[in-house]
Amino acid sequence: MDDRFTLSFRPDIDLTVEAEQFVLRSSQHSLTLESPQPGLKTALEHLKHDHLTLFQLATVVADLDGEEAAILFAAELQKLIHLGWICHSVLPLATAIPIAANYQFKPLNGDWQTQPLLLSRFAYLHQEHQQFVLESSQSKSKIILLDWRVAGLIAKLTQIRTGFSIDDLIDTQIESTSIQSLLQLLIATEMIEVEPIELTLAQWKFHNLLFHRRIRLERLDDSRKENIPVFEEHDRYPIVKPSMSDRTIPLDKPDLASLMQSDMTLTQAIEARQSIHEYAQQPIILEQLSEFLYRTARVKEVYTFEEDPMQIGEVTKRPYPAGDALYELEIYPVVSQCTGLAAGLYHYQPLTHTLHHLADLNPEVEALIYNAWKSTGQQDIPQVLLMITARFGRLYWKHHDIAYGLILKHIGVLYQTFYLVATAMHLAPSAISSGNSEQFCRVAGLDEYEESSVGEFALGSASP
Amino acid sequence: MDDRFTLSFRPDIDLTVEAEQFVLRSSQHSLTLESPQPGLKTALEHLKHDHLTLFQLATVVADLDGEEAAILFAAELQKLIHLGWICHSVLPLATAIPIAANYQFKPLNGDWQTQPLLLSRFAYLHQEHQQFVLESSQSKSKIILLDWRVAGLIAKLTQIRTGFSIDDLIDTQIESTSIQSLLQLLIATEMIEVEPIELTLAQWKFHNLLFHRRIRLERLDDSRKENIPVFEEHDRYPIVKPSMSDRTIPLDKPDLASLMQSDMTLTQAIEARQSIHEYAQQPIILEQLSEFLYRTARVKEVYTFEEDPMQIGEVTKRPYPAGDALYELEIYPVVSQCTGLAAGLYHYQPLTHTLHHLADLNPEVEALIYNAWKSTGQQDIPQVLLMITARFGRLYWKHHDIAYGLILKHIGVLYQTFYLVATAMHLAPSAISSGNSEQFCRVAGLDEYEESSVGEFALGSASP
Repeated sequence: MDDRFTLSFRPDIDLTVEAEQFVLRSSQHSLTLESPQPGLKTALEHLKHDHLTLFQLATVVADLDGEEAAILFAAELQKLIHLGWICHSVLPLATAIPIAANYQFKPLNGDWQTQPLLLSRFAYLHQEHQQFVLESSQSKSKIILLDWRVAGLIAKLTQIRTGFSIDDLIDTQIESTSIQSLLQLLIATEMIEVEPIELTLAQWKFHNLLFHRRIRLERLDDSRKENIPVFEEHDRYPIVKPSMSDRTIPLDKPDLASLMQSDMTLTQAIEARQSIHEYAQQPIILEQLSEFLYRTARVKEVYTFEEDPMQIGEVTKRPYPAGDALYELEIYPVVSQCTGLAAGLYHYQPLTHTLHHLADLNPEVEALIYNAWKSTGQQDIPQVLLMITARFGRLYWKHHDIAYGLILKHIGVLYQTFYLVATAMHLAPSAISSGNSEQFCRVAGLDEYEESSVGEFALGSASP
Repeated sequence: MDDRFTLSFRPDIDLTVEAEQFVLRSSQHSLTLESPQPGLKTALEHLKHDHLTLFQLATVVADLDGEEAAILFAAELQKLIHLGWICHSVLPLATAIPIAANYQFKPLNGDWQTQPLLLSRFAYLHQEHQQFVLESSQSKSKIILLDWRVAGLIAKLTQIRTGFSIDDLIDTQIESTSIQSLLQLLIATEMIEVEPIELTLAQWKFHNLLFHRRIRLERLDDSRKENIPVFEEHDRYPIVKPSMSDRTIPLDKPDLASLMQSDMTLTQAIEARQSIHEYAQQPIILEQLSEFLYRTARVKEVYTFEEDPMQIGEVTKRPYPAGDALYELEIYPVVSQCTGLAAGLYHYQPLTHTLHHLADLNPEVEALIYNAWKSTGQQDIPQVLLMITARFGRLYWKHHDIAYGLILKHIGVLYQTFYLVATAMHLAPSAISSGNSEQFCRVAGLDEYEESSVGEFALGSASP
């Protein structure tokens, strides 16, 4: 029976005792025990308030309820571990807290000390609420470091190449039995790689897997989930960004009623859609750009939800879908060639359907176009480059973990809307797969943490 | 003149000397010096091969070339720092390596020791190539920890609440002048927060900002950029996933030629598109699901690029766009109600336009539908839930840093294609903003690192 770790309930697990009823409650589940035996009762109280080892807990149960009850208790405890309700600690050094259900805690048996021990490439130490926390995209634990020496020990695990000796770690000032227990804690929570990495895992970059796990794993420690978020005043970004300059270019509106009838069918547009990187001799004209923006990105309607528990207030309808109608995306046309419109940088105001001039074609604006051209295979120079930004504050108050992922999906939704309308208008569309946000924020005068470019799309005139 | 740090070229900066010409070369820039003075030559050699302080370097130049040359040298060095060419070290403890241009290194002057020093919430320590590296989404440095004691010191900076005293850190066994220099290194590289956090930064979660910076900041240390990647045999996932079961359901194909003429116009589809969560009494029928999948996701063509330097080989054309035509997304319909098709889990094979039965409507499959229903506001139960996965290996060999971001954009592109075709077919569409990948991978028998769900979409019959 493993005696290296002390066990305790996750801090958010409630234990209430009413007469003969014991109720355990997490935010997801509750578990009621009717008239538990005295030993079991005592063991549960210990799990809530103390840190005892499994052996100590089982002894408590055995003493009061008998040996058979102790065996049953050990089995039930395994189920609680699997639920993610039980923390494992090496006190006073570190505590492993489960962050997801289907939790496993797997210390190595046998001669593990001869294996090379290397900190997982997916593990990371960071400060959270003034604690130093070890997490890993491979692990369902987060380990709170209760002593700074543990960080020193972990640092040593990034360099050990072959074999392992307690002597290598002894200068961390941690005593050797604790070192052994800590190493087992790191192994049991998959912070240390023991088995060779499989090819499917090897292909992941650190940040990609970290992000995937944060947006696609249901976490037990997402406390904000329990309440309906409210769009507070200090988070509030307006439904559309206020005009960024008074050099306003009003745009024509297409005749939508006639387009409804005369436009290409949806099937024709989908089947004909393709990326086009070569343009016609005559560049795109302002009327085309106006129609394109109107059909893909204008505000169709301002309204409020019938029921509005999150106090979102006014929202908008636009031609492309967006979660909760919050519409965080902004479009900045960078024009190199467009008949009827001077080259330069503009912001599109979707409510008034106007462009607002931000900069002439200065070298910094030219660099934006040059970079886009480099990213798209260096064919024709984009006549109009649509820089797409996100005003993060429109989403971040509500969608905590998944917010940035949602923004990237919205970028995709807008890209396909761009593609199809460009196809129907016989324009040449092309999504660009990467860009440099710092450069754009500098040119457009944006605070990168408030609003930053997240997508780029090139547009031009198509050859007949 | 700051004497706490030693300076050196970033390890990848080349210095070649030919006759009287000194050439400095990074992967992005090169800088040629014709007949430099002896002092400057010596200083450059020191920057390449040694670690001297600015004072020591300036002294070398002054001794050989004169005082004026030394002042000029110090100014030119600032430009190299701004380019991101210069590392700052506190030897033998740590080295800060620039990861991006427009680099700044800003030690604090004045009485900085009275300020509360807290490790940035966006900083993280991780193992990379068997080194312990400190990075931060706020910083343009990565700091290599050359000594495990530095990790202990950083751990202490996660807890200090007010004021700072060298005494708090002295038990890390680092001598006190080195502690001061290290703290200045962490401040100068923005690993420690000195100024109060602004509201725009406070709204970011750790993983969102980390991901944003990794996909949107041009990094100097992305070595793989320099070569054209090749789709090697061991990375190779086939253009479509092989059939997952031989319980095949062949699907009807719509008459595309007639749809081209009779379909709704693109403008009608875009303007009418909306999320619908309430369904008609009669559920969706198999013929509708067949038509929907054919119009949105089938393989239209298999072809190879005329020029194929990356050795991609065969690629496909489909109704929605995808970078390099690699098409990593897979669709798994989870059917709860569809006339003509038994409830259960299926995989869509886009080349043969067939469904492959994977599971009946067992409790695990029901849980997928239940979770989707919970996520969409708990209105009608999705009749068909389209689970969208990514086969990561189709992209990861080429798109290193941006790969996962690209997948999320593709999800968005597919969502809008789903929305518009569903609108034209008078079906009820609704994108779902979050899901649990672990659950789906378990049900569908997928290795989460190889292929995992990244999007969900609900479909049903629409009321007239």
